[in-house]
Amino acid sequence: MRVAIVGYGNLGKGVEKAVLQQPDMELVGVFTRRDPKSLDSASPCYAANDLKNHDVDVAILCGGSATDLISQGPEFASITNVVDSFDTHARIPEHFADMNAACGNERLAMISTGWDPGLFSLARLLGEAVLPGGDTTTFWGPGVSQGHSDAIRRIEGVRRGVQYTIPREEAVKAVAEGKGDALTTRDKHLRRCYVVAEDGADQDAIREAIVTMPNYFDEYDTEVNFIDEATFDAEHTAMPHGGRVLRRGETSPGVGQLITFSLDLASNPEFTAAVNVACARAVYRAHQEGRRGCVSIFDLPLAYLSPKNQDDLLAHLL
Amino acid sequence: MRVAIVGYGNLGKGVEKAVLQQPDMELVGVFTRRDPKSLDSASPCYAANDLKNHDVDVAILCGGSATDLISQGPEFASITNVVDSFDTHARIPEHFADMNAACGNERLAMISTGWDPGLFSLARLLGEAVLPGGDTTTFWGPGVSQGHSDAIRRIEGVRRGVQYTIPREEAVKAVAEGKGDALTTRDKHLRRCYVVAEDGADQDAIREAIVTMPNYFDEYDTEVNFIDEATFDAEHTAMPHGGRVLRRGETSPGVGQLITFSLDLASNPEFTAAVNVACARAVYRAHQEGRRGCVSIFDLPLAYLSPKNQDDLLAHLL
Repeated sequence: MRVAIVGYGNLGKGVEKAVLQQPDMELVGVFTRRDPKSLDSASPCYAANDLKNHDVDVAILCGGSATDLISQGPEFASITNVVDSFDTHARIPEHFADMNAACGNERLAMISTGWDPGLFSLARLLGEAVLPGGDTTTFWGPGVSQGHSDAIRRIEGVRRGVQYTIPREEAVKAVAEGKGDALTTRDKHLRRCYVVAEDGADQDAIREAIVTMPNYFDEYDTEVNFIDEATFDAEHTAMPHGGRVLRRGETSPGVGQLITFSLDLASNPEFTAAVNVACARAVYRAHQEGRRGCVSIFDLPLAYLSPKNQDDLLAHLL
Repeated sequence: MRVAIVGYGNLGKGVEKAVLQQPDMELVGVFTRRDPKSLDSASPCYAANDLKNHDVDVAILCGGSATDLISQGPEFASITNVVDSFDTHARIPEHFADMNAACGNERLAMISTGWDPGLFSLARLLGEAVLPGGDTTTFWGPGVSQGHSDAIRRIEGVRRGVQYTIPREEAVKAVAEGKGDALTTRDKHLRRCYVVAEDGADQDAIREAIVTMPNYFDEYDTEVNFIDEATFDAEHTAMPHGGRVLRRGETSPGVGQLITFSLDLASNPEFTAAVNVACARAVYRAHQEGRRGCVSIFDLPLAYLSPKNQDDLLAHLL
């Protein structure tokens, strides 16, 4: 199958690596709205609007949810099959409808793949279906939250900044034991920040601006650590993340059952990319079988994610 | 949807409880090869060969893999849609073919649901598809192994016996860190036995017979604890189990990613039953859409497991 990458940020670079690991995929190239010659990639690079002139089975859209995917998604879904990792949860129904319309009777799109939404969504669905009388709790981290890091960097006097979301292990334990009902937002996660301040900046003022910031930090216990730029470069430029989805329910009174799906990721964008690439295979297969329109990872059999055939899956994986 | 239970051992009793928790299911009754009047059930009880005279959407087959399902499966798949939890891994391809033939163009069967095979199989497939350059390791327990407990009870002088499979946490940690290559069978799990001996039995001989038993115990470190019958009844009659599937791979050199799916189950049969019941919903829906023949949990979209419709899934679970 012939795969194209649209967008060459961290996610696009991750997709490039992931496609090369898959036995049955060929990378057509990277398509960009920047000057294709400016990309530092070993793959063929083309202008985004040149995609329609290439023979592509699935394009993996690697733009951001905030602006790119809302407009880019339907544009590319009118040209070829696509996969995206649209992650603005509140706007998923609207994006799904737009993509479904753009696909028409010709193409297939899978939206909102990755790990959340994506694999975590699958874990939530499975947990609910199997243990209907239970509760689902998601913990995120330890890992870098891009949105919170951006919020820190907008504060006056901040030169560099990164925010780690840290799950509190005592809260995870309480949920696992069915004692999580009374947990507050503050009980579940801690926010830890590392900041490089501008020379002469007021560190107390920066700290105060962070910990009181509405929506982002005010409902959490937040640690602010000031460090120098060399330490920042050495220790805080990776993008680890992860988290856990717990579903706990009772199958009869007093009989507690716990399902946990967890991810420990050294690189958030590379893992998201790896999921997108496996989903591209599912889209390719389902399209070959005549499936059209927009779907999510809920809607295709998981066998379609695997390069193995039915006989191998039965004999070796089931 | 109208569900029937075939077989009323621990699994059948678990299915009865699980069906009652599902909002969209009605229990037609329990079908048994024993005298239906002899069952201690609040549900209607019928003879197994009476199933063909009832209006049933899906029958959940709750017999054992060793003998029952191989013959019962095709028999009932020629009458109605079925779900089973056939778990003899080596014979899955053969059972699949038999069930596929029995379904013909009329019915749909899903075999080998539950947690292993079943949810653990899904975790293995997902892990392999997303991280193709990695390793999958499954740890079982802590929990009761029925096969090993049976083996203990066949030893002369043993009145009661139970065996717990215990994963070694240091091995789990090594695998999670990508350092699990050299681990042996002995390194990964420990076997812990509780035995009530007959009066006057030779405990040293029993211990020796257990720890040297080929295939079951000789490749493991095995603990044998002799206890009295009251302690056995008080502490060792539940059927807890669980385990973990770990997939670790690198998306680029040195960038380790870890996917873990884990279960902590107070009752193995009740949880297996809960999975079977969710899968019965998937079979019902896929059959309504025209799907026929034999499938596994790999072959149907996970959306079919949920009682929620597409709009709810998109808005609230994705």
